[in-house]
Amino acid sequence: MTKTITTSVCIIGSGPAGLLLSQLLANEEIDTILLDRKDRAYIEGRIRAGVLEQGTVTALEEAGAADRLHREGLPHEGFELAFDGERHRIDLTGLTGKTVTVYGQTEMTKDLFEKRMQQGQRFFFNVDDVKPSDLKSDRPRVHFTHEGQHVTVECDYIAGCDGFHGVSRQAIPADVLRTYERVYPFGWLGILVEKPPVSHELIYANHDRGFALASMRSNTRSRYYIQCDASDDVADWSDDRFWEEFATRLGPDAAASLQTGPSFEKSIAPLRSFVAEPMRYGNLFLAGDSAHIVPPTGAKGLNLAVADVRLLHRALALHYRHGKDDLIDAYSETVLRRVWKVERFSWQLSTLMHQFPENSDFEKRMQRAEFDYLRSSEAASRAIAENYVGLPLD
Amino acid sequence: MTKTITTSVCIIGSGPAGLLLSQLLANEEIDTILLDRKDRAYIEGRIRAGVLEQGTVTALEEAGAADRLHREGLPHEGFELAFDGERHRIDLTGLTGKTVTVYGQTEMTKDLFEKRMQQGQRFFFNVDDVKPSDLKSDRPRVHFTHEGQHVTVECDYIAGCDGFHGVSRQAIPADVLRTYERVYPFGWLGILVEKPPVSHELIYANHDRGFALASMRSNTRSRYYIQCDASDDVADWSDDRFWEEFATRLGPDAAASLQTGPSFEKSIAPLRSFVAEPMRYGNLFLAGDSAHIVPPTGAKGLNLAVADVRLLHRALALHYRHGKDDLIDAYSETVLRRVWKVERFSWQLSTLMHQFPENSDFEKRMQRAEFDYLRSSEAASRAIAENYVGLPLD
Repeated sequence: MTKTITTSVCIIGSGPAGLLLSQLLANEEIDTILLDRKDRAYIEGRIRAGVLEQGTVTALEEAGAADRLHREGLPHEGFELAFDGERHRIDLTGLTGKTVTVYGQTEMTKDLFEKRMQQGQRFFFNVDDVKPSDLKSDRPRVHFTHEGQHVTVECDYIAGCDGFHGVSRQAIPADVLRTYERVYPFGWLGILVEKPPVSHELIYANHDRGFALASMRSNTRSRYYIQCDASDDVADWSDDRFWEEFATRLGPDAAASLQTGPSFEKSIAPLRSFVAEPMRYGNLFLAGDSAHIVPPTGAKGLNLAVADVRLLHRALALHYRHGKDDLIDAYSETVLRRVWKVERFSWQLSTLMHQFPENSDFEKRMQRAEFDYLRSSEAASRAIAENYVGLPLD
Repeated sequence: MTKTITTSVCIIGSGPAGLLLSQLLANEEIDTILLDRKDRAYIEGRIRAGVLEQGTVTALEEAGAADRLHREGLPHEGFELAFDGERHRIDLTGLTGKTVTVYGQTEMTKDLFEKRMQQGQRFFFNVDDVKPSDLKSDRPRVHFTHEGQHVTVECDYIAGCDGFHGVSRQAIPADVLRTYERVYPFGWLGILVEKPPVSHELIYANHDRGFALASMRSNTRSRYYIQCDASDDVADWSDDRFWEEFATRLGPDAAASLQTGPSFEKSIAPLRSFVAEPMRYGNLFLAGDSAHIVPPTGAKGLNLAVADVRLLHRALALHYRHGKDDLIDAYSETVLRRVWKVERFSWQLSTLMHQFPENSDFEKRMQRAEFDYLRSSEAASRAIAENYVGLPLD
């Protein structure tokens, strides 16, 4: 027995990209179905990024899901780069007139779920065996099992918002799909701690012993990271060991105001740059991590996914409102042009701020020279700033 | 039999750096001796760089050797970057208010020789067995043989302007000297041709088949380069082969106005980044290529040498005029701060504009993304421009 249901856009993946797309389309009265291999509690619980570009805030406003963000989000007018304890502030607002907003991805996801639930969105959680098909026809389908039942969704378009490990990208034939990848030779060990942040702005630090990042989720909750071996076991990193290493890398100046305490979350994440082309195949569109991954340095992952979704929403809205497919036809090229620029920035900032085991002494000095040049050049600092606050949508 | 002569500053190396230093010191009535392993005709005949920063022009004005430069030099207000035939102009004057001047190093060297000769400078050409000694004493010496005679120069200071293969850097004890190096996995094949340049501004091109540079020496003489294998033999590069490759890499748009003809100079040069620290040891100072090499992309080698010499001149003038050694004591640190920034720029532009055999597909796309970003970002273009016209002296 297969249950068949219909919708305009079937969205695979109920993370922030899928939820946002669903809400933006709902605002245009375009019907969607959302499905996910996990359930709401799991998705909301994922600890991820926490720095939103102004364009991401705008998208949440357009979605009507920005009320709590405006109450609780922390606007930041700058951030710091540190090198062996010396510091250089990137004055985002002075250099670009813009700010970024510290607000956890997990909070944004909750707000979007809340809104979609209120509006009666159709969700399928805990689905298995998801399989998109008939991508080149004008009636593509998504098949899956849900609570023991086979379900087929018939739709106009499929949006693949199911992340790096999702099925959407895999549905594009291998002879069409091109992929580009860089796996970094280290990971990030991150902790959450119920203490005020060491500084009211983020500090990205490069130190002989490796990278460190002082970030935050709120005025009372800090999110700290250090570069570690990709093969490290979290169990080998006691809180004490973490704090000692973190303080050393931050440098005595910044670490002077560090408040330590027991961590309540601790995990190691790999760093990867990845891009898949094209981002459209027939009536399947990829958006967010299903098509590209950036290393977390510079906090671009979530923001890039949101930018994809904004462009996809525009393209679909033009189709449903005015019957025009210009933006749909341009989607992959338009989105990828921006994706590569953001990949470049994330790669550049990662390359600048980490210790690479393969780096020669000359390359180490190039990192340092880049930092010294940034300190002396408004133009170079502005280039960093304009990427950090977010490049134009198109 | 050893002849002993005395001077204030013994300058080893009579290339543009040594000649300029000698002239600047002569203007302050500080006595110098210049010695070189080669003779004047050889030194003047060396084909080298051809793009002068404004600060280099200023230095030649201060030296009183800029008359012909002002008559014959070509002021350039911009240059172009090209990627697979697409072009982006860096508007130097619009972005920085400054220009660069096309004027061959060989011409600048002639002008400086002419001036020094007129003023009766003491030169020793074709010297052998040059050996600086007593560097830590207040009466250092330079020993050499000249026309069969042993000569010892007693002086206050020694200026090592004798290039990468010179003896000056080697005179610094190995346990004091630190060196940093990057050898690039390719060379530049350059030709001179008596034809008007393909464009009135320089074009740096990156193409699937490798780098190309359209430069010039005058309105009727062009200097063109292509990236080649470091192991290539000039004999394998006929003019026809060069022109075909050069036009392909420049792209059809730019190559449309290319005038080809027989080359009258053709040679292959390796590409290297190199820095030696410190640049002072006792009363020996290094300046120019004796302490550092940059790859030629961006035309920084000669300009960097001139900046070293300007700072060394200032330091020595302060000593002889006012008996103050502050700038002498700060020389190495002051100069190296700037050197590393210029090394960074030359490395960055080389990394952006060449094909590297070891580059992954991802890294190739990063090059392209950097070019696309430059085209869209005034800040990033200004950062390139401010380096190209020359960073501040200190």
